[in-house]
Amino acid sequence: MGKALMGPQTLVYPMPAMLVGANVDGKPNFMVVAWGGIANGEPPMISVAIRHQRHTLKGIRQNMTFSVNIPSVDLVKETDYCGIVSGSKANKAEVCHFKVFYGKMGNAPLIEQCPVNLECKVIHILDLDSHSLVIGRIEETHVSKSCLTNGKPDVAKIKPLTYVTSPAARYHALGEVIAKAFSAGKELA
Amino acid sequence: MGKALMGPQTLVYPMPAMLVGANVDGKPNFMVVAWGGIANGEPPMISVAIRHQRHTLKGIRQNMTFSVNIPSVDLVKETDYCGIVSGSKANKAEVCHFKVFYGKMGNAPLIEQCPVNLECKVIHILDLDSHSLVIGRIEETHVSKSCLTNGKPDVAKIKPLTYVTSPAARYHALGEVIAKAFSAGKELA
Repeated sequence: MGKALMGPQTLVYPMPAMLVGANVDGKPNFMVVAWGGIANGEPPMISVAIRHQRHTLKGIRQNMTFSVNIPSVDLVKETDYCGIVSGSKANKAEVCHFKVFYGKMGNAPLIEQCPVNLECKVIHILDLDSHSLVIGRIEETHVSKSCLTNGKPDVAKIKPLTYVTSPAARYHALGEVIAKAFSAGKELA
Repeated sequence: MGKALMGPQTLVYPMPAMLVGANVDGKPNFMVVAWGGIANGEPPMISVAIRHQRHTLKGIRQNMTFSVNIPSVDLVKETDYCGIVSGSKANKAEVCHFKVFYGKMGNAPLIEQCPVNLECKVIHILDLDSHSLVIGRIEETHVSKSCLTNGKPDVAKIKPLTYVTSPAARYHALGEVIAKAFSAGKELA
């Protein structure tokens, strides 16, 4: 088969397409972040990598809180828009008709239309080089009642977007179930 | 519609299913990590969250290098197995028939059968609470030649696994393309 060497690349499959929110100068703003993921189990924490000069990062530093909103495939245009335009130039929440609400933290803006919303409190901001890696403790989780099945968040109703960079920058839907976890590997054990 | 409050949850969609590798006492070992993602752009860095007591973490601390291997759907049993069994009790590479090779770093074990392999050098290990967040600089990227299209890694050939926790812990395939990124949102701009 053989391997091709491609040098250092940010090549992970799949990536999420998270709408990260913060109040900047008191106004809700949202950006797309594909670079991040869960960072700790107990207590739950999440990391998001954000370029230092981003408008949303200014708001995160002001309040030391942020939100992570998981968009469904129905919100692909709005999600992509939030990755194209800076909040310093447009009121993205208004353009996207986001219904913004606040939860436990009081100042981390959440998007009603996104099926999953995490409220986060900043624990660390690590200056890595081009990006700040913001690590937040997840303080509350909001899930749209319409996306629950027997009280559990149901991925089939959430319909999350995934972000893929190669061969082209595109959003994909999630596909079919391949196997149960903590089960499929048992036959090798 | 309305929201249900679920308390602090590690609820992100989608998550990757990465096979993280390290030499432990000189022998290659691999574990599954769903908690992690890209952490920096220039230079490329990645974060992986690992429970302190894990065998693989011991190897990462010994060498200050690790690998991230992206399995395809064909490797779902092997991937799941690496998440069930500890390397302190079994030679997982042998059980899974992984063809292990080494690249630029010399001591970060890579899996030939995985279409994408990242060689990483540890930059930070952040003790977050239950987990260590290991941040590595990506030093080299290996991609199976059979998964390239016009010289670019092609997700349709890579066929990565995604990991979903709710309503059940399951691996999914990637689904259809929903939209082009940096394009679909332009009509709102």
